[in-house]
Amino acid sequence: MEKINLKQKLSLFTEHWQPKIISEYNGNELRVVKLSGEFVWHDHAESDEIFLIIEGHLTIHFRDKVVELDPGELIVIPAGVEHKPVAEGECHALVIDREGTVNTGATGGERTVENLERI
Amino acid sequence: MEKINLKQKLSLFTEHWQPKIISEYNGNELRVVKLSGEFVWHDHAESDEIFLIIEGHLTIHFRDKVVELDPGELIVIPAGVEHKPVAEGECHALVIDREGTVNTGATGGERTVENLERI
Repeated sequence: MEKINLKQKLSLFTEHWQPKIISEYNGNELRVVKLSGEFVWHDHAESDEIFLIIEGHLTIHFRDKVVELDPGELIVIPAGVEHKPVAEGECHALVIDREGTVNTGATGGERTVENLERI
Repeated sequence: MEKINLKQKLSLFTEHWQPKIISEYNGNELRVVKLSGEFVWHDHAESDEIFLIIEGHLTIHFRDKVVELDPGELIVIPAGVEHKPVAEGECHALVIDREGTVNTGATGGERTVENLERI
């Protein structure tokens, strides 16, 4: 049981859309991720999802609206709600999902990361 | 489903050791809290607990060590692990617990908040 410094963890990698597991919590995974550009439309059938912005700006598109997130802001996306994150610049975020949740949900494709690295 | 600005939520109240629920996530509660002074030794038998520091400094005492937390740092305290948070100045934190987790665990006492306010 050690403390975790989010910016230090984010300094350990450079790739985009590759969440890294930094801890577990009640059957969920805390992940940090660097986002840049446009992701795919997807949802997570079995898990709500938290995005907390650490650095940069994130736009999350939903089918009926758009939400703009800055550092210190978070959103909880309920299970089953389709969303598409888009980062114009580079955005760093803490993401929390139920253990084993696939980053692209059922959409799949080349952005899918099968086995998340732990850092 | 709206975004949440943590500092804006923390601006809505002044009292210490009174967690406020700001959202739910996978059967857990996201809470913000202002801490000042010394809390009681306690543990949460049924829930891990996340502390993420937003502002100020927090010392968490464990039976075998002490952890010092600054803004942007978090710790996951496993269920059943005794801890005592102490804030020398005022500290603002995001805390995540399983729904219904009592802030003082089984220790009880005057610091117990029975029904957490939602803000």
